[in-house]
Amino acid sequence: MKQRDSAPTMKDVAREAGVALGTVSKVFNDIPVGEDYRKRVEEAARRLGYQVNSYARGLKTNRTCSVALILPDITHPFFSALAQGVCSALAARGYRTILSITAYDPEAEQKCIQMVQQNKVDGIIGLTYNPELDIDPRLPYVSIDRYFSPSVPCVASDNFGGGQLAAEKLLELGCTRPLFLRIGSRVPGESDKRGDGFESVFRQRGMACAALRLNNEEGLEPIRDFLAGHMDGGQLDFDGIFCVNDALAVRVRDFLAELGLEVPEDVQLIGFDGLRHFATGDFYCSTIVQPVGRLAETGVDMLLREDRSNLPSLVCLPVTYASGGTTKE
Amino acid sequence: MKQRDSAPTMKDVAREAGVALGTVSKVFNDIPVGEDYRKRVEEAARRLGYQVNSYARGLKTNRTCSVALILPDITHPFFSALAQGVCSALAARGYRTILSITAYDPEAEQKCIQMVQQNKVDGIIGLTYNPELDIDPRLPYVSIDRYFSPSVPCVASDNFGGGQLAAEKLLELGCTRPLFLRIGSRVPGESDKRGDGFESVFRQRGMACAALRLNNEEGLEPIRDFLAGHMDGGQLDFDGIFCVNDALAVRVRDFLAELGLEVPEDVQLIGFDGLRHFATGDFYCSTIVQPVGRLAETGVDMLLREDRSNLPSLVCLPVTYASGGTTKE
Repeated sequence: MKQRDSAPTMKDVAREAGVALGTVSKVFNDIPVGEDYRKRVEEAARRLGYQVNSYARGLKTNRTCSVALILPDITHPFFSALAQGVCSALAARGYRTILSITAYDPEAEQKCIQMVQQNKVDGIIGLTYNPELDIDPRLPYVSIDRYFSPSVPCVASDNFGGGQLAAEKLLELGCTRPLFLRIGSRVPGESDKRGDGFESVFRQRGMACAALRLNNEEGLEPIRDFLAGHMDGGQLDFDGIFCVNDALAVRVRDFLAELGLEVPEDVQLIGFDGLRHFATGDFYCSTIVQPVGRLAETGVDMLLREDRSNLPSLVCLPVTYASGGTTKE
Repeated sequence: MKQRDSAPTMKDVAREAGVALGTVSKVFNDIPVGEDYRKRVEEAARRLGYQVNSYARGLKTNRTCSVALILPDITHPFFSALAQGVCSALAARGYRTILSITAYDPEAEQKCIQMVQQNKVDGIIGLTYNPELDIDPRLPYVSIDRYFSPSVPCVASDNFGGGQLAAEKLLELGCTRPLFLRIGSRVPGESDKRGDGFESVFRQRGMACAALRLNNEEGLEPIRDFLAGHMDGGQLDFDGIFCVNDALAVRVRDFLAELGLEVPEDVQLIGFDGLRHFATGDFYCSTIVQPVGRLAETGVDMLLREDRSNLPSLVCLPVTYASGGTTKE
């Protein structure tokens, strides 16, 4: 690590460029000056390795070039991929990411929003579980996966379409006795549409579709019991199961193994998220893949758009199917 | 989402508290005033819902209450757990986390440091791969997993001790023909000590220990070939393998399966990191667990310590062994 003695100041830049201090200040604050002056100042700054004090800049131009990203957790692979995408998309536009983690706590989420507003960020991208969130309407906000109101733009995967895709895939692979399993937050969110889309396909065909929906507080035991209660002569009443996410699909595969059932031979299983081992390895299971990179990119784009007067209230991005060993293909 | 009309100003707080504007300013900038004044201002601010403009504060007190966290990637579960730990530890101390992702690119790392210095952050926590990093010596810096010089404090797991622990565990489980496998960055780092610790145990006992060390550029094929080349009459020349990380251990298990070998019956396998499926599920493999939370907490503590004149240059935190199905216990 190399050492440096003292940082050059704006005065040094003015001396080096042979211009007045006020001219340097104008250039650094994007106030118009003659093209020749701008060039001289920029070249002098480069030669000296001068670094603009963005804090002072933030005060003067009322822009901080910072965006807050609020997530419940970033150890879950979906959230960490989302954080990576948002951080990279912001960096590409010259914005800093201020990361806040809320641990799924509605109060922490509200506190987080307050803190972030104190920082005078230029906007917030949030994936939150507090339906009553109080957000300063002057601050651009983009919600991920949770729809608040027509005035708060939301970006999500096409969850309904993903549910339909899972149903069509199971039908194509010969399943006739479908089941939808869900465990998640009490707070309604876009991901609830996964089951709706799945069931709609069977309803349209006049086929029955079983479903079990649980809240996190109830834990996974009821799912294990439900599956055990639907065994009949060593066979399960269902031959195709769609789980609300990959993590649940992996647990359900374990429950099926306990019942002596083989996946995909006896039961085919599709999850949702598109998670991979160590982020880049194999898929955990056959799955509906969320376009995480596009979610992040679209969220950042909607947040930073110059004209935000005509933003859509909900943008749903297309999902895809990927085979990951828990279906016959 | 509730709406609000206009934010209260410092003037409003002064009026509400019945004090001079200068007194309000002093309180918000931590300049001593009479205790009674401080209380009146704080209560008025609370009643009005006044939010301190931290940017202005940053300029005046020369503190930004922001710390930059520089990581190569946060989709890898070790890095996302580390990011979560650092962000939480900073938040608990009233600091914001500015997240920067460098994609393992030494130039991007240097750029990142420059950008971060422009932000006038209070310090940097970095896990980087650029051995020539040019960091402003006036800015507190804590390095994770990479030792630069005695003047740059580094926090890491006890990698050497972890290697020894893996060796002792394999010996205890009856292994007599050990192998160490490594793939990673060309840039030397603390994690290189894992193999050193492992080999040292066998050297002390006068036992042979094979090793294969590769750089990322070489890919995993040489490891597959090496294992295939050490098959003899349906048996592998090694009965205990220590892999430099869990991701490699999982791949090696696949390679062994291709050779018709059972883990842990024919070969026992230990990784390093302590990663779990979906962050909270089962371990991927038997493993040496890094104390990620303590790494984050210690890094933040060393960065923000009031008196930084007497910091250690390297702090190694203890690791533990966890059985995860690839060893006999």
